[in-house]
Amino acid sequence: MQRNLERFNFAAEQMRVGKLSGAVGNAAHLDPEFEEKICGRLGLNVASVSSQVIQRDRHAFYVATLAVIASTLDKIATEIRHLQRTEVREAEEFFSEKQKGSSAMPHKRNPVTCEQISGLARVVRANSQAAYENVALWHERDISHSSVERVILPDSTTLVDYMLAKTTSLVDTMFVYPERMLRNLNSTGGLVFSGQLLLDLVEAGVLREDAYRIVQRNAMRAWKEERNFRELVMSDPDIIGKVEQRTIENAFDLNRQLRNVDKIFARVLGEQPDAKSKSKPKK
Amino acid sequence: MQRNLERFNFAAEQMRVGKLSGAVGNAAHLDPEFEEKICGRLGLNVASVSSQVIQRDRHAFYVATLAVIASTLDKIATEIRHLQRTEVREAEEFFSEKQKGSSAMPHKRNPVTCEQISGLARVVRANSQAAYENVALWHERDISHSSVERVILPDSTTLVDYMLAKTTSLVDTMFVYPERMLRNLNSTGGLVFSGQLLLDLVEAGVLREDAYRIVQRNAMRAWKEERNFRELVMSDPDIIGKVEQRTIENAFDLNRQLRNVDKIFARVLGEQPDAKSKSKPKK
Amino acid sequence: MQRNLERFNFAAEQMRVGKLSGAVGNAAHLDPEFEEKICGRLGLNVASVSSQVIQRDRHAFYVATLAVIASTLDKIATEIRHLQRTEVREAEEFFSEKQKGSSAMPHKRNPVTCEQISGLARVVRANSQAAYENVALWHERDISHSSVERVILPDSTTLVDYMLAKTTSLVDTMFVYPERMLRNLNSTGGLVFSGQLLLDLVEAGVLREDAYRIVQRNAMRAWKEERNFRELVMSDPDIIGKVEQRTIENAFDLNRQLRNVDKIFARVLGEQPDAKSKSKPKK
Amino acid sequence: MQRNLERFNFAAEQMRVGKLSGAVGNAAHLDPEFEEKICGRLGLNVASVSSQVIQRDRHAFYVATLAVIASTLDKIATEIRHLQRTEVREAEEFFSEKQKGSSAMPHKRNPVTCEQISGLARVVRANSQAAYENVALWHERDISHSSVERVILPDSTTLVDYMLAKTTSLVDTMFVYPERMLRNLNSTGGLVFSGQLLLDLVEAGVLREDAYRIVQRNAMRAWKEERNFRELVMSDPDIIGKVEQRTIENAFDLNRQLRNVDKIFARVLGEQPDAKSKSKPKK
Repeated sequence: MQRNLERFNFAAEQMRVGKLSGAVGNAAHLDPEFEEKICGRLGLNVASVSSQVIQRDRHAFYVATLAVIASTLDKIATEIRHLQRTEVREAEEFFSEKQKGSSAMPHKRNPVTCEQISGLARVVRANSQAAYENVALWHERDISHSSVERVILPDSTTLVDYMLAKTTSLVDTMFVYPERMLRNLNSTGGLVFSGQLLLDLVEAGVLREDAYRIVQRNAMRAWKEERNFRELVMSDPDIIGKVEQRTIENAFDLNRQLRNVDKIFARVLGEQPDAKSKSKPKK
Repeated sequence: MQRNLERFNFAAEQMRVGKLSGAVGNAAHLDPEFEEKICGRLGLNVASVSSQVIQRDRHAFYVATLAVIASTLDKIATEIRHLQRTEVREAEEFFSEKQKGSSAMPHKRNPVTCEQISGLARVVRANSQAAYENVALWHERDISHSSVERVILPDSTTLVDYMLAKTTSLVDTMFVYPERMLRNLNSTGGLVFSGQLLLDLVEAGVLREDAYRIVQRNAMRAWKEERNFRELVMSDPDIIGKVEQRTIENAFDLNRQLRNVDKIFARVLGEQPDAKSKSKPKK
Repeated sequence: MQRNLERFNFAAEQMRVGKLSGAVGNAAHLDPEFEEKICGRLGLNVASVSSQVIQRDRHAFYVATLAVIASTLDKIATEIRHLQRTEVREAEEFFSEKQKGSSAMPHKRNPVTCEQISGLARVVRANSQAAYENVALWHERDISHSSVERVILPDSTTLVDYMLAKTTSLVDTMFVYPERMLRNLNSTGGLVFSGQLLLDLVEAGVLREDAYRIVQRNAMRAWKEERNFRELVMSDPDIIGKVEQRTIENAFDLNRQLRNVDKIFARVLGEQPDAKSKSKPKK
Repeated sequence: MQRNLERFNFAAEQMRVGKLSGAVGNAAHLDPEFEEKICGRLGLNVASVSSQVIQRDRHAFYVATLAVIASTLDKIATEIRHLQRTEVREAEEFFSEKQKGSSAMPHKRNPVTCEQISGLARVVRANSQAAYENVALWHERDISHSSVERVILPDSTTLVDYMLAKTTSLVDTMFVYPERMLRNLNSTGGLVFSGQLLLDLVEAGVLREDAYRIVQRNAMRAWKEERNFRELVMSDPDIIGKVEQRTIENAFDLNRQLRNVDKIFARVLGEQPDAKSKSKPKK
């Protein structure tokens, strides 16, 4: 969204122009100096050259920028839709106790706001195609773009405004379930650490080919038989005979995986690495 | 438009379905026989299998078909826009004597209806992108298509209906200037017959290479110097020494070019070849 | 896919035309009868009227039809991608024992074929925009469509062919885990039957408002506290005092939900309702 | 194109990033400091936060920017295509004397480069739809964008590079016919000055309603009867009785319309207003 804000400002600035150069842009009735003064009073730059109309690459670029913004909002909504699946349930859209659920399934809460955002993003994306087609006007000034823009300019701007408001409220009020996240993470019995284990075995002196074979064998077994990966590893003679127990334990240490996360948040949000409370999930 | 009518009927028929199979499509509360009876009374076929929703490939195909129809209307409008150019002026949108022209150029008549049709076609085309994206719903039944279709289904159907009405009226009332067509055709002094002349010279026994060289030489000269091609040819010793004068005259005969035109119209419109009055341009 | 097959045949038939009517379509050098004979020998219908080119609505409709087909394949791939999630795991793309998994996570199997199909569908969808824009050629015959079609016609047809082959193989060889499906279905302790229970309570004489309140109360509790819904219901005095136990048991009966499923498959696939073995999931 | 250059640099800068943060972006194996150093050596900024992949809004914005650039090139090509019409002929693509014309019409020169540019712009525009769809990856990192980008990234970048080269050469070598421009301008017998005449009559004291009525009456007559507008005006008693002859002559003065044109060119190109030779059309 930081990038989107930059893009929007950049595209909006290219839209902030006016023209008073007449029907064919030759400024025959009003000298360019007046055009500059009048536009200036309205807070507009002057389109340095224009025909009957301001060139439509400005509008096309603006609508395309809205399409990119809408697609980012779609990404956020898609993330939450996944997290809200019954089988995942790591987060949920806010749901008031008073709200009625589905009529067919009284308990069910659908991510209706997210689905709406994902849907509306399609409309904004599609509109940019019409905006592109408006650029190559005949003699740089036929009027065919007019009917198009009466639809796509209000629709795209209003929709993105609405989607931004909805997404802000969505993120602000959503339920987040960190315990469930941890449970899902642990559901594979430590399989998510298989890559780390591989590296640590190699570090401890095991040949890479051997390490991969050993780890994969246990990983596959854990996956297919739904066994606990960590337990399988801890009792595999090919491993315990070769490395110390604390090496293995270290491989399964979640905090080790998270040690740089605050640095990354600080890099994005400009906060101090010790501002840990900010990166904690809300409950 | 004959093809478009076929397409529309085909796509609309695939849309003419209903479903009463419940929230997950298993017909748990109402046997399929009832679904068939109830839909039948409503003039609908039954979606042979459905989830919570009817599959969106039907709607996507329908909107894509509207996009093709809109593009054909754009083609018709584009043709008239070209014909209405000041330099061409072979046809014009109807313009009432009482209508005010452009404020900047009181005499000017712009093809405003055509430009609107060309513009709106872009909106309908773009909408089909959103319709395509609606097909791959999650588990064939998330509800993200709903917000999209509230925009694109009324917009696309209403716009195409409007564009069809506008195009019908446009074609019905447009001014056509056959004299101007003939004048434009003759404006190049017969250059448009250069291809026919080439063939006729070869037919009359001139070597193809020679014929091409001779015709092109005269054609280029006529084009660059804006001379009358026919006159140049008629006075070229390389030609008049080789073929009879009536061979040359025959090459420049417009009726010869038009001799199969009525057959083609009959092939399209199903009329008798002798119904010549129909293929005459309106005045 | 039955609908897509119909669409393809319909669109392909509209493409199966030829023309030999000359540079401006007036059949000046070759009578229409020859055009019909020659096209006939090539297995083509004749474009009843043409300019220098065959009208591009045919190609646009064809590419749009490919875009709809690609979107259906995207839907199938999206379904399998969801089923293959670690938390869901009801189905998986075929994965050879010899295949190497992810280098970072040796056990991990990604739905790479499905992701490729979902991706390529985007390319085919987008190509139809370019195909639409090819329809409104200047004077129905400028040559600007040529460069476009050199890209989009081979790309779209080849991609859809490839995607169809991939999807066929995907569906043919995928792993399906019916036990896991049942486990996921039961994971909510019967919550999926809450709608059925509601209807059955009403049927047994409970007022609808009361029934909804009672079912929702238990459903919400089961959902929030991750309790077994069926057990909560079975011990709720508001329920057990009002309806017989077998009414409740009947509400939680999975077979009752499935009783019309074979009829639906028969409706789609044209098989006999008793051909039950076909609708069983592969293992 | 100045705006497009700005846009390209802006979008390309947002693409100039790298990442070495591992499969889930937690920088578990390599501290963020190393990521910054290594990317720095490669001339790349660091994606401040990433998953397995760099977020696709960057690529979507880049491809959308290419679509806008392609649309501007389409606009330039469309302009030249119009100017090259037989009836207009104010400019032409370069055509070598040695080049063969159309086989059907030996004299004919088609704007083949312009038509190719207009066509290829459609491909680049369409590709941006696929790029948008790549943004909302599942969990911000499924791999479905990969197959798409293998097609659209090389195609879009290569096509725009090619189109830029073609357009540069096109503009550099095109034929421009200023005499023909003047002839076309005069072809309506001064009708193009009707707006100026209206303003000048009002300035000279004629009531606006009267002025409009008088000018339109003469304009319409000139248009319909293809008469010389200036001559009609010069002999209209309603005009010559009211204003001095030099007022009328002044209204028909072309140089008056052009007096601010050099200022406008200077505003765009940053040249001095007296650098008149630059704004003269090439022959």
